Amino acid sequence: MSDYPDHTQVRRIAVLGTGTIGASWAAWFLARGYAVDAWDPAGGWEQRLASFIETAWPHLEALGLADGADRAAVTLHPTAAAAVAGADFVQESAPERLDVKRALYRDIDPALPAGTILSSSTSGLIMSELQEGLDSAGRFVVGHPFNPPHLIPLVEVVAGRRTDPNAADWAIGFYRHVGKHPIRIRKEVPGHLANRLQAALFREAVLAVQYGLASVEDIDAAVSRGPGLRWALMGPHMTMNLAGGAAGYRGMLGHFAPGMQAWWETMTENPVLAGELAETIVAGVEEEAGERSIEELEAERDARLIGILGVLGRG
Amino acid sequence: MSDYPDHTQVRRIAVLGTGTIGASWAAWFLARGYAVDAWDPAGGWEQRLASFIETAWPHLEALGLADGADRAAVTLHPTAAAAVAGADFVQESAPERLDVKRALYRDIDPALPAGTILSSSTSGLIMSELQEGLDSAGRFVVGHPFNPPHLIPLVEVVAGRRTDPNAADWAIGFYRHVGKHPIRIRKEVPGHLANRLQAALFREAVLAVQYGLASVEDIDAAVSRGPGLRWALMGPHMTMNLAGGAAGYRGMLGHFAPGMQAWWETMTENPVLAGELAETIVAGVEEEAGERSIEELEAERDARLIGILGVLGRG
Repeated sequence: MSDYPDHTQVRRIAVLGTGTIGASWAAWFLARGYAVDAWDPAGGWEQRLASFIETAWPHLEALGLADGADRAAVTLHPTAAAAVAGADFVQESAPERLDVKRALYRDIDPALPAGTILSSSTSGLIMSELQEGLDSAGRFVVGHPFNPPHLIPLVEVVAGRRTDPNAADWAIGFYRHVGKHPIRIRKEVPGHLANRLQAALFREAVLAVQYGLASVEDIDAAVSRGPGLRWALMGPHMTMNLAGGAAGYRGMLGHFAPGMQAWWETMTENPVLAGELAETIVAGVEEEAGERSIEELEAERDARLIGILGVLGRG
Repeated sequence: MSDYPDHTQVRRIAVLGTGTIGASWAAWFLARGYAVDAWDPAGGWEQRLASFIETAWPHLEALGLADGADRAAVTLHPTAAAAVAGADFVQESAPERLDVKRALYRDIDPALPAGTILSSSTSGLIMSELQEGLDSAGRFVVGHPFNPPHLIPLVEVVAGRRTDPNAADWAIGFYRHVGKHPIRIRKEVPGHLANRLQAALFREAVLAVQYGLASVEDIDAAVSRGPGLRWALMGPHMTMNLAGGAAGYRGMLGHFAPGMQAWWETMTENPVLAGELAETIVAGVEEEAGERSIEELEAERDARLIGILGVLGRG
């Protein structure tokens, strides 16, 4: 089961589901020079997809298009099976419900070409539970991106129990080939890896509101004007390596680990993100946003992301 | 006790302790056009401080110097009391030990000019425990920066029990005046706020190694090529606001809060950062660093930080 095409031979990519994540994937694949076979079951999806690509294209141009990239290289399909029938790779971004994704997988199972790998954008589901009973289960992997996928490089690749290990290797290689930064998640756990890391930070940010440590806006600034600037450069372990001075990580262990361990002991509560606590945060976020609408905040985020990626590199 | 100088009247800043943090503060204040009164008890500190400023200056030039900024405007003092005697503001970055800081504070207490506020860079100590018994206790606050302070905008300001509320307000205003991004921490807790947030993320990153979820390098990339890029733009709450699509934070609460809450339930362990686990991380960080020395990694970090600050703005 390792008869997969060379990464350079991939021409057509099926994008199943064209909501926020799927449309962003479509834009990225177009920018990298692929033809996209798109499908979505929702009414009006064709216009929304076209509009998303229209908005994203100048950003993708700023990051640099592949030779031959054509924003119009999209074929709209009436069924998922039709979309995958001619595809060399499939990126699935259907709603985050086990029954919905399973029904979709059963639909396309007979139509998936031999050697074509399906990668699911799922953030919350487990591939082993999704792939049961499919003839092509060995070619199903998780390829979880971060919002917006056409700008954020990270993709988490996870194999299910029935996934061919070569299929996971192929997917990692292919994401790298298209300019993404894939990482290999070795175990199936809720939230994969990056969302667990994000949830840990978010939990403490919610507790900071609960404890009244600072305003919501100041809590956000405590990340974005402080350690968040470093996290765009390096992850938590490398950050600690540089916190140790010339002695590196071992120096950090000697100097900071005891204090860190003591802080951890005071950080064991799980907040309930509802009711008055949730309302306090909503009010704080609205104050922080001020006059800016969600669309304006998104546009600001994307423009600044382009700038940062220009400094740090795209992949 | 609110007879503090106007922020624009400050001319001389005493920097007590010129290790990694203090030297970086000195460089920042020089770049903002202040005269620095420096003191450190360690042998050879004068050369190390000069060398730090020499290395940092081109970065500070890239960020933009204040009119009249002069890297040579440093006066070296033989005692801490002499350094503060003519200062309009004091930034203290002595070692993180209660006894050391208390002894230093007792030394300078009689010499601190009326109206001059002392701000401590302490990350792990509590001002209420530091300021006991000082005549000038009302003018002592925490002003905790992030490494390196001459590049990272965030400063956490915390008042102790005996701190004059006007002194904390003054410090916040002054940090803003010199181009920093101060935030007000309303309660004294271990690690203030940003380090608690950082510790929460770091804990989960350590657990990811313990659970064998991914390599150390991939765990770091799970932040720096993913959510870390967004955290340079906005904090955890605003990130969630944009995760909710057009419905904003309330939309996020409906869609993601239940899953988030479920993940939190699986994230309750405190790792012990020692022994085999620590060795695994050290080996992983060394593999990630490859041929790059600590100095080279620091230089890379700083150059990229300059680039990001150029995109996002300095303060």
